[in-house]
Amino acid sequence: MKYDVLVIGSGPGGYVTAIRASQLGFKTAIVEREKLGGICLNWGCIPTKALLKSAQVYDYLKHVDDYGLKAEAIDKDFDAVVKRSRNVADGMSNGVKFLMKKNKIDVISGVAKLKPGKKVDVTATEDGKVTEYSADHIVIATGARSRELPNLPQDGKKVIGYREAMTLPEQPKSMIVVGSGAIGVEFAHFYNSMGTQVTLVEFMPTIVPIEDKDVSKQMERSFKKAGIKVMTNSSVESIDTSGNGVKATVKTKKGEQVLEADIVLSAVGIKTNIENVGLEDVGIITDKDKILVNDFYQTNIPGYYAIGDVTPGPALAHVASAEGITCVEKIAGLHTETIDYGNIPGCTYATPEIASVGLTEDKAKEQGYDIKVGKFPFSASGKAKAAGAYDGFVKVIFDAKYGEWLGCHMIGAGVTDMIAEAVVARKLETTGHEVLKAIHPHPTMSEAVMEAVADAYDEVIHL
Amino acid sequence: MKYDVLVIGSGPGGYVTAIRASQLGFKTAIVEREKLGGICLNWGCIPTKALLKSAQVYDYLKHVDDYGLKAEAIDKDFDAVVKRSRNVADGMSNGVKFLMKKNKIDVISGVAKLKPGKKVDVTATEDGKVTEYSADHIVIATGARSRELPNLPQDGKKVIGYREAMTLPEQPKSMIVVGSGAIGVEFAHFYNSMGTQVTLVEFMPTIVPIEDKDVSKQMERSFKKAGIKVMTNSSVESIDTSGNGVKATVKTKKGEQVLEADIVLSAVGIKTNIENVGLEDVGIITDKDKILVNDFYQTNIPGYYAIGDVTPGPALAHVASAEGITCVEKIAGLHTETIDYGNIPGCTYATPEIASVGLTEDKAKEQGYDIKVGKFPFSASGKAKAAGAYDGFVKVIFDAKYGEWLGCHMIGAGVTDMIAEAVVARKLETTGHEVLKAIHPHPTMSEAVMEAVADAYDEVIHL
Repeated sequence: MKYDVLVIGSGPGGYVTAIRASQLGFKTAIVEREKLGGICLNWGCIPTKALLKSAQVYDYLKHVDDYGLKAEAIDKDFDAVVKRSRNVADGMSNGVKFLMKKNKIDVISGVAKLKPGKKVDVTATEDGKVTEYSADHIVIATGARSRELPNLPQDGKKVIGYREAMTLPEQPKSMIVVGSGAIGVEFAHFYNSMGTQVTLVEFMPTIVPIEDKDVSKQMERSFKKAGIKVMTNSSVESIDTSGNGVKATVKTKKGEQVLEADIVLSAVGIKTNIENVGLEDVGIITDKDKILVNDFYQTNIPGYYAIGDVTPGPALAHVASAEGITCVEKIAGLHTETIDYGNIPGCTYATPEIASVGLTEDKAKEQGYDIKVGKFPFSASGKAKAAGAYDGFVKVIFDAKYGEWLGCHMIGAGVTDMIAEAVVARKLETTGHEVLKAIHPHPTMSEAVMEAVADAYDEVIHL
Repeated sequence: MKYDVLVIGSGPGGYVTAIRASQLGFKTAIVEREKLGGICLNWGCIPTKALLKSAQVYDYLKHVDDYGLKAEAIDKDFDAVVKRSRNVADGMSNGVKFLMKKNKIDVISGVAKLKPGKKVDVTATEDGKVTEYSADHIVIATGARSRELPNLPQDGKKVIGYREAMTLPEQPKSMIVVGSGAIGVEFAHFYNSMGTQVTLVEFMPTIVPIEDKDVSKQMERSFKKAGIKVMTNSSVESIDTSGNGVKATVKTKKGEQVLEADIVLSAVGIKTNIENVGLEDVGIITDKDKILVNDFYQTNIPGYYAIGDVTPGPALAHVASAEGITCVEKIAGLHTETIDYGNIPGCTYATPEIASVGLTEDKAKEQGYDIKVGKFPFSASGKAKAAGAYDGFVKVIFDAKYGEWLGCHMIGAGVTDMIAEAVVARKLETTGHEVLKAIHPHPTMSEAVMEAVADAYDEVIHL
C-alpha cells in the first residue's frame, strides 16, 4: 500500500501530524504498536491529570471545615482513583480512534521498521504478519520512555517508572521519588495527598531545577508544608530490593544515608525510542540519543522526517504536536513559520501548579540582559484569598532596554491555564505597558500577571 | 486641609485612583462613608467569590464517588459559609487600609459633599462634625447600589438586594431570583448549590442576556441540569409579602403565574450614587443617572472628575480601576492612553463560569462584519475530561477580511482566568494565525482557545 504521508507512532506528535496531513489533502496512515494516543494519552499527561484531580478533591475533603462544610468518614478508594484515571485515558484513546476514522486516516496496528526507498515494514500486532508500506513522506514520531539509571534499574515492581506508578495494584505506605522534574513532582504530590509517606530526592541543588529559582524555593516550601520530605543535592547510589521493601543508599552533602520505602519511583528523565526502528538501515543520523532534523523536521535522508521526543528540544506533548503540524504544512508547501523554541511553555500540575515560559532570571542575566523583574504574590490577590489558595506568585522578567518580555514564571492554583497569556503576548512582541494596559478582569488570578508587570515598572497597585 | 488629589469613595475605582495618585507624587486623601474597599470588597466581587468557593467545594463533596473518594454525613453549615465570606471581605478591607497607610494616603471617614471652588465638606462618621477640604483635583468615585424596580420594592427581609443576599440570617428553602445578569446568576447558583430551591426569572428571551446567544443557551442547559428553574421572557408584575413568604405574580408568554418562595432577590441592575453628593451645587452635568465625562474622566467643571460606576460604560470593578489610573495619569501629565471600551472583559462566576470580551456573533453581524466563527467544546478537551468538568466551550469570532479578533466567548470551568489571553492578544492586534501558532501547553483548558481559533480557519485538530 502506498500513502502520501505515513506516520510512525500515534502520540500527540503522531496523531496530530496525521490529522493535519489529512486536512491538507494527503492520503495518510499511522502505525501504532500499542494503544492510539501514545504515552501522553495512555500513560502520561492525561491519566496523571485524572489522578491529580482526585488528589485535589481529596485535599478539599480533608479541609471541608475551612469552607464552612461538613463531612465524616473521609477516605479514598485507591483502586477507584486508579480506575477513574484509566477510564479517562481509555476514553481519550477512543477519541483518537474516532478522529482517525473521521479524518480517513488508516490505522495500522503493529511495529514499524524503516527501510530505504521510503518504505516501512510493519509487523502486525495481531498475527505477526509483515506488510510493506511505502509513502512519499514518512514521519517518525516514536517518542520516548522512562530512562533507566545504572544505579537504579527498574524491576517494575519495587523500582518503577511513571507507567507503573499510574497503576500500582495497591497504594504504597512509603515511596521514594527520584528526580523532581514534572513527572517526579506530580507523583510526589499525588501519593503524598493519598497518604503515602513521600521522600523526594533531587540531584540538583533545587527541586524543579529547570524553573526559576524563586519558583523552586516556593515549591519546596509548599511541599514541605504538605508533609513531603525533600532532599536536594542528593543522589541514589545503590538500591537493595532483597528485603520486604527497598533500601536506597543516598549520597547527600552530609554523607551517605539509607532510606527505606515500599516503592522507589525513578523519574530521572526519558530515553528516546530510536532502537529497532531501522534508522541505521536507512542511514538517518542520530546524535546524543536524538534524531537530527532541520527547522522543518527533515532528517538527512529525503522523505524521512522526525518530530517530537525523538528529536532535540523539549520533550513535551504540545511541542510534538506543533512540530508535526509544521512538518506537514511545509510538506504541503504552505508558508508555515518555524517554531520559536524560546517561547514554549512548560507546566507542572502539582499543588501548587507551575507554569513558565521564556528565560529564568538567572538565564536572562547569564545572557547579558539588563533586566527589570516584577513579582506579585497571590497572597495579595482577592480572588486567591476568596478561594483560600494563595501560595505562590507570578514573576515576570523584562529587558530593561527594549521592553521585551523575556520570561514569565508562575506558581499557584490554576496557573497552568494562565500561562497562555504570556505565550501569546510574547509571540506578539508585547512590551510591559501593553500587558499592563490590557484590562484584566476582577477578581481573577490573572490580575496577578498585570500586577507583576506593574511591579516591574514600579506601578504595582496592590503591594 | 488642602490636597493635590481628593478621592470620594474607596471602592476599586477610588482606592486604586488614590494609590496611583500617591505613586505619581500627589498629596492624596480618600473619603469613605462606610468600610474601605467599597461594594466590591465588602459586598460584591470578593465576598461572593468566597461564597461560590464554598459552593464549589460542596459540589465536589456531593460527587466524591466520581473521583474515587468517600465521605459520609455531607452537609453545609450555612452560617459558617457566610462567616467565611465575611472574614475574607474583612481581610481585604484591612488590606486596603494597609495600602492607604503604606502609600501615605489620608483616609477621611465620613460623607462627602462637593462644593464649588474645588472644595468638599465631609460630615464625619464618628461625630457628625463637618470639615471642609480642598483639592486641586477632586475625583468622584461614589459607585452604585442595587436598583429598585417599582413593582419590586426591597424591604431587606423578604425582598432583598445583593447585599442582604450575602448575609441572610438563615438559608431560605426557596428563592426567586429576578434578573439573570452576573449577580443574579451567581446567587442563583450559590443558593441552588446550598440546597435552596431556586427560580430564576429573566425579562429577556435568554439568561445572561448580554452574552453571546450560544453562551446563554449553554448556561440555561447547565442551570436546568443543576436543578434551577429558569423562566425567560418573564417579568415580576407585583409582589405580596403579607403571608409567611412572598408571592410573586410573574407575567410570562403563557399568561400570569403566581410563584411562592421564602425570599425574592432583586438583581435587576444598579442605581448610581449621585444623590446628595453636591453635583448640582457645583453644576456638574449628569445624564441618564450618570455623570458625564470626557476620555480622561473630566466632568464639565474643571478640577472635578468622575470614574467608575457613576460614569457611563460598564459598571465593573476592573473598569473603575483602569479609569481611575487613566484619570490621575493624565492629571500628572503622563502620555496615558484612553481606555478601549471595546476590549473590556466580563466575567460571571457561576458553574460553569462565563468570560467574554468583544463582540458577540449577533453584534458582529449587526455591525456588518463578514465573520469567521470557531467553536471548541470542552467535551473534546483532555484536561476537561481528566478534571471531570467539560460543560461549555470557547467561541471565537474573527473578521473574515482583515483577520481582526472581534470577540471571544467562553463558558466552562476556570474560564474567568483564561479570558486575559484574548484581551491581551486583541490589544496587540493579533490575527487568528498568530494565536494559533502560539504554542499552548498541553493538557490545559487554554488549548480550547487555540482549537477554537483553528476551527474558525478550518484547521481544528481535535474535532
